[in-house]
Amino acid sequence: MKATTKIRVRYNECDPMGVAHHTAYPVWFEMGRTEVLRQSASKVTYRDLEAQGVMLAVVSLEVKYKLPARYDDLLELRTTVTNVGHVKIEHEYQLLREGVLLATGRTTLACLDRNGRPQPVPEILRECQ
Amino acid sequence: MKATTKIRVRYNECDPMGVAHHTAYPVWFEMGRTEVLRQSASKVTYRDLEAQGVMLAVVSLEVKYKLPARYDDLLELRTTVTNVGHVKIEHEYQLLREGVLLATGRTTLACLDRNGRPQPVPEILRECQ
Amino acid sequence: MKATTKIRVRYNECDPMGVAHHTAYPVWFEMGRTEVLRQSASKVTYRDLEAQGVMLAVVSLEVKYKLPARYDDLLELRTTVTNVGHVKIEHEYQLLREGVLLATGRTTLACLDRNGRPQPVPEILRECQ
Amino acid sequence: MKATTKIRVRYNECDPMGVAHHTAYPVWFEMGRTEVLRQSASKVTYRDLEAQGVMLAVVSLEVKYKLPARYDDLLELRTTVTNVGHVKIEHEYQLLREGVLLATGRTTLACLDRNGRPQPVPEILRECQ
Repeated sequence: MKATTKIRVRYNECDPMGVAHHTAYPVWFEMGRTEVLRQSASKVTYRDLEAQGVMLAVVSLEVKYKLPARYDDLLELRTTVTNVGHVKIEHEYQLLREGVLLATGRTTLACLDRNGRPQPVPEILRECQ
Repeated sequence: MKATTKIRVRYNECDPMGVAHHTAYPVWFEMGRTEVLRQSASKVTYRDLEAQGVMLAVVSLEVKYKLPARYDDLLELRTTVTNVGHVKIEHEYQLLREGVLLATGRTTLACLDRNGRPQPVPEILRECQ
Repeated sequence: MKATTKIRVRYNECDPMGVAHHTAYPVWFEMGRTEVLRQSASKVTYRDLEAQGVMLAVVSLEVKYKLPARYDDLLELRTTVTNVGHVKIEHEYQLLREGVLLATGRTTLACLDRNGRPQPVPEILRECQ
Repeated sequence: MKATTKIRVRYNECDPMGVAHHTAYPVWFEMGRTEVLRQSASKVTYRDLEAQGVMLAVVSLEVKYKLPARYDDLLELRTTVTNVGHVKIEHEYQLLREGVLLATGRTTLACLDRNGRPQPVPEILRECQ
């Protein structure tokens, strides 16, 4: 399962070097994950899942920064579900500007209940793979 | 009731103009409110209040920006509780760097229950006045 | 001059009360200002202006919060240029969800040069009024 | 070279799950890097370096999240310079609460000039190793 998200770089996301701060990228990745689920056949959203007691917590994050993004750039984020395990989900990310790769990333999410205990990934997310 | 909070300006709080972004200031004001309560005689924290079902939602915010703050500046935030009404609390803020006033602010918070309905301000907060 | 901007509430913009944190709103207002200029007849962007040495610094911010916004809400921000003076520009904001008003705001920006000294508002911005 | 930084978790850093959002951690790591340099024998700060045209851009970020941090927690961040190469610097991070490890991280920074081109790491940073 894949999704493409358009991201306009906000002024407050940029730092005194004039480029998007490196902590903006994992925020964008999270937007990508939201869109993967919305664009899936399931018609379920993360908001729905959370209302049902399914929490997805980031347990691992990796980002490689290749070229800077700047204020007002219109970026394209490609998000792919790469693995769905028993209690974990992995995503990979490619961030581009006009076809040029700016950054890549990878996250692992753990599926938790309201008390923070691991629970099996719901079937609906398994279908996103 | 008053409190003084030291704030070191973070790199990611600064924008391409090289100064702290204007949206960092209300974040700092919230830190000031946390410290007012912590430094009060009550020994209660906002975290305790929230655990007891007392939510404090900002319903009004005003900031006047006079001089810029920069990365790594060590600022002093003076937070004052100026009024405690039946369901609302007002604070005022002065932000300084080495005695020079950089900005002032004012907020009104409404006291809500877990369902977002107004509830009387707890007695413990009334004593902060 | 007016512009309408669609805003999808991000997960990281929401707080433990489950609603958009009050400091997300002035970030959205800044997005609205960027879009007013982009949608104007001038074909100039804030990014262009900044490259030309025209800095627009927020000197006053006011927000009234009426109803909460939640994660994944699709909001509509209406931004209006209400006054363009010699060195200052005023905007007003209305934030809505499905036609219901959630918040209003107002900002004053000062036009500065690269050294932080006031300079006249460029003619191009005057036409946005 | 090592530094320890105390971090009080801010309300706006926490999300609807009631825990610090995963994107707050790399912000804290950046604070740790600022403090490593400040606490070094060099008496130089990142702010000084940047004024001299030495930019340090994050090119790689890794975070492992083990246990959640919560609003108002007082955390301890241990930052270590693990390698200083010709144009790159590596740091490792340990985030603890009352002696319990919450997260670990690792970053690689590239030393750039004002035009974004690699330049040798200044001698002063080499001494931080």
